[in-house]
Amino acid sequence: MDDKVNLAEAFARLDGPFKPLIVAHMNDYKVMVAKTHGEFVWHKHDDTDDLFIVLRGELTIQLRDRDVVVGPGELYVVPRGVEHCPRADEEVELLLIEPLGTVNTGDAAGSELTAPERELDG
Amino acid sequence: MDDKVNLAEAFARLDGPFKPLIVAHMNDYKVMVAKTHGEFVWHKHDDTDDLFIVLRGELTIQLRDRDVVVGPGELYVVPRGVEHCPRADEEVELLLIEPLGTVNTGDAAGSELTAPERELDG
Repeated sequence: MDDKVNLAEAFARLDGPFKPLIVAHMNDYKVMVAKTHGEFVWHKHDDTDDLFIVLRGELTIQLRDRDVVVGPGELYVVPRGVEHCPRADEEVELLLIEPLGTVNTGDAAGSELTAPERELDG
Repeated sequence: MDDKVNLAEAFARLDGPFKPLIVAHMNDYKVMVAKTHGEFVWHKHDDTDDLFIVLRGELTIQLRDRDVVVGPGELYVVPRGVEHCPRADEEVELLLIEPLGTVNTGDAAGSELTAPERELDG
């Protein structure tokens, strides 16, 4: 994984929403591509912030007190410990950056949406 | 800085090439927007990898043994300790993610291209 990553090619490799693929590593962080469509699950990460960079579509990051609508070319950091539930009424393509080992469903681990860490080239 | 970031608006705030602005924090990392045009300086970061996400234009990341040409919608991680010198023949807009405190010119700190850490909202 010492070459550049073409994101369009990486998105084409995804086999469904909420099933991210790790496309690069930076120190002990993972850079993932993901598609979302529909509603995820309410959860929080007590140990880490969570960086969302939306490339296509519009992602609504529901917080308990408000919605943050993140469109293409926008990014948002969910602070650690903050409950959130992403929702996409149409398909969204995004980059996610978190420490390696972070479970996608956070404290809702065990949800049917909990996905294993998978490498693009794995 | 608890709201979303619109990258086009952030790029519009830049006042020249090689003068990044911090648009978000994720744990102890900084997310920066930057424009590049021309050649940077050869340097390396002994303590960290260096994530480049190109959004517009074509960035040539010169390594000692090859060039990595990173186009729009592509990303590349320069591993720690690897000498590199970005070059852009035309203006490039990119995201950079590194630990807070990382000097843009690495071991070439003191170069005329060494830039202070500046916040978008600073």
